[in-house]
Order: sequence, then C-alpha cells, then structure tokens
Amino acid sequence: MKDRIRIVDTTMRDGSHAMSHSFTREQVRKIAAGLDEAGVDIIEISHGDGLAGSSINYGFSGTEEMELIEEAASVIEHARLGALLLPGIGTIADLKEAHRRGVRAVRIATHVTEADVSLQHIKAAKDMGMFTAGFLMMVHMAEPKQILEQAKLFEDAGVDYVNLADSAGHLLPEEVRARVGLLTEKLSVPVGFHAHNNLGLAAANSLAAVEAGASYIDGTCRGLGAGAGNCQIEVLAALLERKGCQTGINLDKLLQTAEEAVEPIMLRPQTIDTDSLMLGYSGVYSSFLLHARRGAERFGLRTGDILKELGRRGMVGGQEDMILDVAYQLSSSLKS
Amino acid sequence: MKDRIRIVDTTMRDGSHAMSHSFTREQVRKIAAGLDEAGVDIIEISHGDGLAGSSINYGFSGTEEMELIEEAASVIEHARLGALLLPGIGTIADLKEAHRRGVRAVRIATHVTEADVSLQHIKAAKDMGMFTAGFLMMVHMAEPKQILEQAKLFEDAGVDYVNLADSAGHLLPEEVRARVGLLTEKLSVPVGFHAHNNLGLAAANSLAAVEAGASYIDGTCRGLGAGAGNCQIEVLAALLERKGCQTGINLDKLLQTAEEAVEPIMLRPQTIDTDSLMLGYSGVYSSFLLHARRGAERFGLRTGDILKELGRRGMVGGQEDMILDVAYQLSSSLKS
Repeated sequence: MKDRIRIVDTTMRDGSHAMSHSFTREQVRKIAAGLDEAGVDIIEISHGDGLAGSSINYGFSGTEEMELIEEAASVIEHARLGALLLPGIGTIADLKEAHRRGVRAVRIATHVTEADVSLQHIKAAKDMGMFTAGFLMMVHMAEPKQILEQAKLFEDAGVDYVNLADSAGHLLPEEVRARVGLLTEKLSVPVGFHAHNNLGLAAANSLAAVEAGASYIDGTCRGLGAGAGNCQIEVLAALLERKGCQTGINLDKLLQTAEEAVEPIMLRPQTIDTDSLMLGYSGVYSSFLLHARRGAERFGLRTGDILKELGRRGMVGGQEDMILDVAYQLSSSLKS
Repeated sequence: MKDRIRIVDTTMRDGSHAMSHSFTREQVRKIAAGLDEAGVDIIEISHGDGLAGSSINYGFSGTEEMELIEEAASVIEHARLGALLLPGIGTIADLKEAHRRGVRAVRIATHVTEADVSLQHIKAAKDMGMFTAGFLMMVHMAEPKQILEQAKLFEDAGVDYVNLADSAGHLLPEEVRARVGLLTEKLSVPVGFHAHNNLGLAAANSLAAVEAGASYIDGTCRGLGAGAGNCQIEVLAALLERKGCQTGINLDKLLQTAEEAVEPIMLRPQTIDTDSLMLGYSGVYSSFLLHARRGAERFGLRTGDILKELGRRGMVGGQEDMILDVAYQLSSSLKS
C-alpha cells in the first residue's frame, strides 16, 4: 500500500453525464476553485465522453467544453487541470486546443482490449509536455493477464500512469484487487482506479485498489457521475485518512465544496435505483443508462430489460447509437 | 463462507428513523407484503429505537407500533415477523404484547459492552417460543475479544443467533472481518451483521461479514435507515448472487418493492451528506443525527461540530437526552 495517494477529481467530467452535460461557467468556476483549495491533485474536466463528446450520439454540451476548461484554468492555482480523451471521439487537434486553454494532464481512454488505438494520442500528449495516463474502461470484461498486456502498451508508449476503470460498476473488491495487484507488481509506472457505485461498492473497491498498490484514485463530489455515480470523493478522503494514507486533502474544505458547489446544482440525488443497479448487475457501461431510459420510453419497455440485453450482447462504449436498435428489436420480439 | 445467507429486512425498524417514525398502516401493509413475496427471511418492524421507543426522547410514532405490527402480521405468509427491543426502553410486557399481535422473532439490543442487561428479556422471549437474537450495537467501540465475551453471554442465555451492529457506520471491511470472524469461529450459534453506510461501506462490510462466516445480514429497501442509511437490501441480494450465495430472494420482486412501496414515501434520498459522513468518521450512533441537527439549529452550531464532540466523548445509544446539553456547552464555550 502506498503512503501517499493522489486524488483525481472527475466531478466535471464523469459528473457531466449526470448533469446531462449542462455545466455552466459559473458552476465550473466554483467547483474548480473549491477542489483546488481542498488539495485535489488532478481536476478533470471535459464532456462526459471526453473531449469533443458533444454530439447527437453522446449528448450536446450546454456550454462549449473549451470555455469551461478556460474557466477552470483561470481559478486553479495548485492542481493539474486534466481532460479525458477517447480516440475516435476526440482528436489530437482537440487535445491541442484543450492544452492551449490550460489543460496540463490528459487521460487517453479506450475499451479494455483496445489500448493500441491510443498510442498516437499518448505520443502527442507527451510531445506537448502533458502529464499523460492510459485509461482502460470496462475492466470487468477482461482477465488480469489480458489487462496487463494492454497496460504494457501504455507503458511502452511512455504514459505517466495506467488507470483502470470499472465503468459498469460490476467488480467485487477481490476482482479489483486481482487486477490492480497484478499491474502494480508488473508495471514500472503507477496504477490508478476509477470506480462506479452501481453495486454499492465504489468506496470499497477504491480501498481495495489502494490496498493492492494503486497510487491514483478517482472520485467526484457527492459521487456525481454516470449510472449510480462514482466514488464519492469526500468519503474517499475520510476513508484514506482512516487507513493512514496521506492525500494532502483538507477534508473540511472538500466537504464544503461538495455541499455548497455541487449538491445544490445536482439534477437528481446520486442513489442506486433499479436501473443503475441493473447496470452493475448486468455489467453494462454506466453512461448507457440515460440512452437506455430514452429507448425504454420510446418503445414502452422497462429500462432494466434493455440493460440486461445490452449486457448479454457485451456491448461497449462507442456503441451508444445501437441502444435504440436493441430497444426496437426487444419491443418487436415482445410483440411477435 | 456459508452457502445460504438469511436476509433480515429492517426497513420498517431502522428505516423508521429516516421516516421520523411516521409509517402508516397502508405503507406497512404494502412494504411487508412485497418483502414477504420477495422471500426475505425476517421482516423487522418497531419504532426505530425498538418496541416502546415512541417518546419525547426518541421521537413519537405517527401510528402506534402495535397497530403497525398487526397490519404487517396480517399480510405476511412466509417470513418471520420480527421486532427489536432495547432493554431500558422496551419491557417484557411490550414484548408480550408484540407477540400477541404477531411478532415471532425478536432481537434484544444492547450497547456492545452491556449484553448482561438483556438476559431476562432473552429468557422471556425464548419462553414465548420466539426466534431470539442478541444484538450488540456500536461494535466499533470494542475489540473482537471483548465482543466475543459479550456474545458468549447471549449464547449462554440461549439465543438463536448473535448480531453485530456497526451502528456508527465507522468500521472498515477488515475490522468487520476480524469481529465477525472471531465470533463465527468461537460461538456455537450463527452470527449476523447490520451495517450503516456513513462511510460508504455498508455493502462491502456486509460482504466482508459473509466472507467471515456470517449467516444473517440486515438490509433495508433503498437503504432507508438512520444516518446515511443501512445496507441497501436490493444491492445486497444482487451482490450475494454474484458471490454465489443462496438467499431465496426473488430480486425482481425485491426491486419492485423498493421502487414502488418505499422510494415514493421517503422523506429524503438516502445519500451520504456532510452530517452523515461525520457520524461515520467520528464513530457516533447513527440515530443521533436528527437529534444533533436539532441541537445545531437551536444553538446556531454546525451539526458536524456537535457530532465530532459526541464522538470525542464516546457517547452511546440511550444518551440522546444529553445531546442538547452538549450543544449548549459547545455554544457557550464558543461564546466565551
């Protein structure tokens, strides 16, 4: 277990899903300033699906993300300002623009078996002098050994750390421990972890990652994020203190930021309802939830039934446009 | 790890705190019927502080608990109807009345170091032919060895199982494992566990208890309960299925009950806010939360500061009437 854990806040990135990508400049200013003062190491901001995610497929941003990045950059004094980039959605041009607006850290995210599509982006980020992480999503869909192979591609490309994301909130603590543990043992770069709370285990899985040697842990204020949300960053900071880890976090300031800057603007409380539980149970990408709800409404189905079918088909991030097709097919098969 | 885990629902008992003890006959009827159909083993119902808790000290019940018990008993076909009793609040006469109205299981609850005050009540319950558990609260305040000594008093008194409650939601999974593990090893009767989610670990701590050999796990629909709530029973059932444990639960029916019978009547979402996090962090009895909020309002203090002080003083269940004194003293010391 590392003595010093770096906390990565992704309230203004993963939380963007829960906000229907509607963050305003004023909200971003307040959140970023609070997180910075609380001592968070990296503050990530982007559309929920990463740079340039704003689209008919992933949902349009209320305010251009480059404006939001600029706003956050204007108030941050200590933390690194970060962004997420999914190759195929964001481009190197987007990354350059984000860098110009103040982004100094980037995580290049791919499906757990597709790290190879990130290599050009990682090189571009490093060439710009950015702090760069490789980010594997949906890590419940691969065994530790396969994940290690993918992580080594990141390592060879020169990333500063490798982050694993339980995007479906499906993993049990022992499954997190096996994945993070193998990577911390075999890689020369640090390892991070990003949890979702669909099965109520975001905090415990984050602790399991720390116990297995992770150095970076993601969280969000009040857990704001896709599905049932992420690891609640205030809880994470309190737990790491109980475990005797240093985080550099001022808990009072972090609690105040969550309470005053985030809670009042949330569209709904971040709880585990039937639909988000079904995401975790079926192993479905957390940001599919709102898409599945739309499909359910349009075709008169239960959201949970669509999610189960998406899980059965092993659908992964990037296939959002197929969710309506699946809903249509389900509704047709029920009628016939 | 046991193959078959018994699920104890305490929505209508611990959840009574979160409902300000305002459950109606109609609500109870719907919840009890749903839980029974879903296959829950024991359905607990009482004032949040146990039988006869309705008082100026603990909060008055909107509907007499004996009426609610009768209502629940009228719809339950498979489960055991249970009640909680804290010696000093409820009496053997209350237990007899509850039995007459249909209660068939009782848990006699004491502070973790005071099992001896329960022995008469346990004998009375067994004499009535009831399924009887000894229930130790605030188990973070004692080491495993001390807890074992107390549990043995229950065992000698003839209980059917011993239940440990992390009433402050303060324990880490390894601390749960140590406590439950020692008891399952040394006792001849089964062991149960009751979690609170103040540090986001209710589900993980319940799994840790199961891994350490627990046979009975408490949960509530949507996590309804004191502080940040209990282990969410729908999540628990899904997780135990993932772990390969039998529970006899129909998950669909349980999800439906939580969604249709409980969620619509909740006074507030069961999230981890600053105050409930401070309960877990400071190791304070979860049902102190509403009392501390009242003290904060009355004396112009922050609830968190009162909770920290209660934790510092090691205050335990039964000292609710002292919370206002503590608040008064705090406010005086701030003024001077």
